[in-house]
Amino acid sequence: MATTTDVTTIDTGMAAREAIRAGRRIPTGGWAPGYVQANVAILPKDLAFDFLLFCQRNPKPCPVIEVIEAGKVHPVISAPSADIRTDVPRYRIWRDGELTDEVETIEEHWSDDLVTFLLGCSFSFENALIDNGIELPHYGTGQNVSMFKTSVDTIPAGPFSGPMVVSMRWIPQNKVVRAVQSTSRFPAVHGAPVNVGDPAALGISDVSKPDFGDAWEPKPGDVPVFWACGVTPQAVAMASKPPLMITHAPGYMFVTDLRDVDLAVF
Amino acid sequence: MATTTDVTTIDTGMAAREAIRAGRRIPTGGWAPGYVQANVAILPKDLAFDFLLFCQRNPKPCPVIEVIEAGKVHPVISAPSADIRTDVPRYRIWRDGELTDEVETIEEHWSDDLVTFLLGCSFSFENALIDNGIELPHYGTGQNVSMFKTSVDTIPAGPFSGPMVVSMRWIPQNKVVRAVQSTSRFPAVHGAPVNVGDPAALGISDVSKPDFGDAWEPKPGDVPVFWACGVTPQAVAMASKPPLMITHAPGYMFVTDLRDVDLAVF
Repeated sequence: MATTTDVTTIDTGMAAREAIRAGRRIPTGGWAPGYVQANVAILPKDLAFDFLLFCQRNPKPCPVIEVIEAGKVHPVISAPSADIRTDVPRYRIWRDGELTDEVETIEEHWSDDLVTFLLGCSFSFENALIDNGIELPHYGTGQNVSMFKTSVDTIPAGPFSGPMVVSMRWIPQNKVVRAVQSTSRFPAVHGAPVNVGDPAALGISDVSKPDFGDAWEPKPGDVPVFWACGVTPQAVAMASKPPLMITHAPGYMFVTDLRDVDLAVF
Repeated sequence: MATTTDVTTIDTGMAAREAIRAGRRIPTGGWAPGYVQANVAILPKDLAFDFLLFCQRNPKPCPVIEVIEAGKVHPVISAPSADIRTDVPRYRIWRDGELTDEVETIEEHWSDDLVTFLLGCSFSFENALIDNGIELPHYGTGQNVSMFKTSVDTIPAGPFSGPMVVSMRWIPQNKVVRAVQSTSRFPAVHGAPVNVGDPAALGISDVSKPDFGDAWEPKPGDVPVFWACGVTPQAVAMASKPPLMITHAPGYMFVTDLRDVDLAVF
């Protein structure tokens, strides 16, 4: 892994957040193996019910790890000692759906009106795939999976609606069943695939041309397998153009005290 | 089953609701086998975010099947043709936490301020137990399982807090593993047990004296197995004494168009 040599001492969520507070504001891929990392979306309170309802209706792309109530800054369930205003390595500030700033802490943007959503990210289920002997060529390279907007609509709630975004991984034919099984255990981090081997069913005409992330060549016999992607809630929230929205910067995740295994349903 | 002779023609959720609208306002146990039945909790909009958050934080006792937005009456996900004001066979009206009325329809209590929560009920996972060869002596008798308040607190949200309520079923020792497996598939209807064989760990001193429901005698070798119970969210909501809350009457459930199998995670 590209960053492993820098972060071998970062072996827990707490160690990760201490490093971040001490100024190590770099991407968190490979940090604290086995600990749950989360996507971050911070929204004004008057949008919180509709956004939580949107997540409830679309649990595969929008798996909720924790919601921190308006004005509160400690994720008491997933990382009680953390402060959400300082412990994400890099934040993005969006106003009316436009990116206006990228910052290292958000104290100056904070108000009692803000509700924080921590949403599951693919790192946890990628760990499950790797633990089950499934290679992921992008893992730890600094490159990203392929991601696609689909023709499948999410179920709307209030002002939130839009297409589901999926990530794609090439999986060897003889590992497809294992890939389904091992990710099914983790519905809180996107869970089972939404599609195996049929990109056209998702409205994807060319798997070599992703809408986001990087393109990957299959090996002979590889099957394209698609999982719901955490880009979905951010894209949907942004499209509603809230007056203020704060997110993590891509790859700069919030590292919790939860273990991947804590999220397994069986 | 006590009611089977009356309801053999009620074989779908839609048939159940048509019978109810036609005046058959009796308990729904045994109706439409294989269709998901739901607990109903209707609350004023200003409590909806906190109640949804409470459910998100306590998914085992409070599994959300669907939330119908303020003022809307059609459960577009679980039963699009239904009207939540007329299609539950019996409702209870609570004001400031006190039961004030029991009624057959709620049109006269309805307002655009009300948000409806449909929560998973134990019928679905009891079907799974029975399909797996596990006998449930109360099933279809008109009697109820044993239910207990526990010493385990739910995770609070806003004004909502209180102990988790559990249901208990005696399971033969050689069926305990199967009981865990078969209910684990259904996290949307309480899912896996919260405890096997150790009532003291839940603060339950005498399993022959339930707080709600009926007492049951074990057969030799039976193990007490505890599941989170849908009484929890109603008890918690009531304890917060909302100005108005509307629920189903116990046993008079909302019958959806969803099949139990639609809720299985694998």
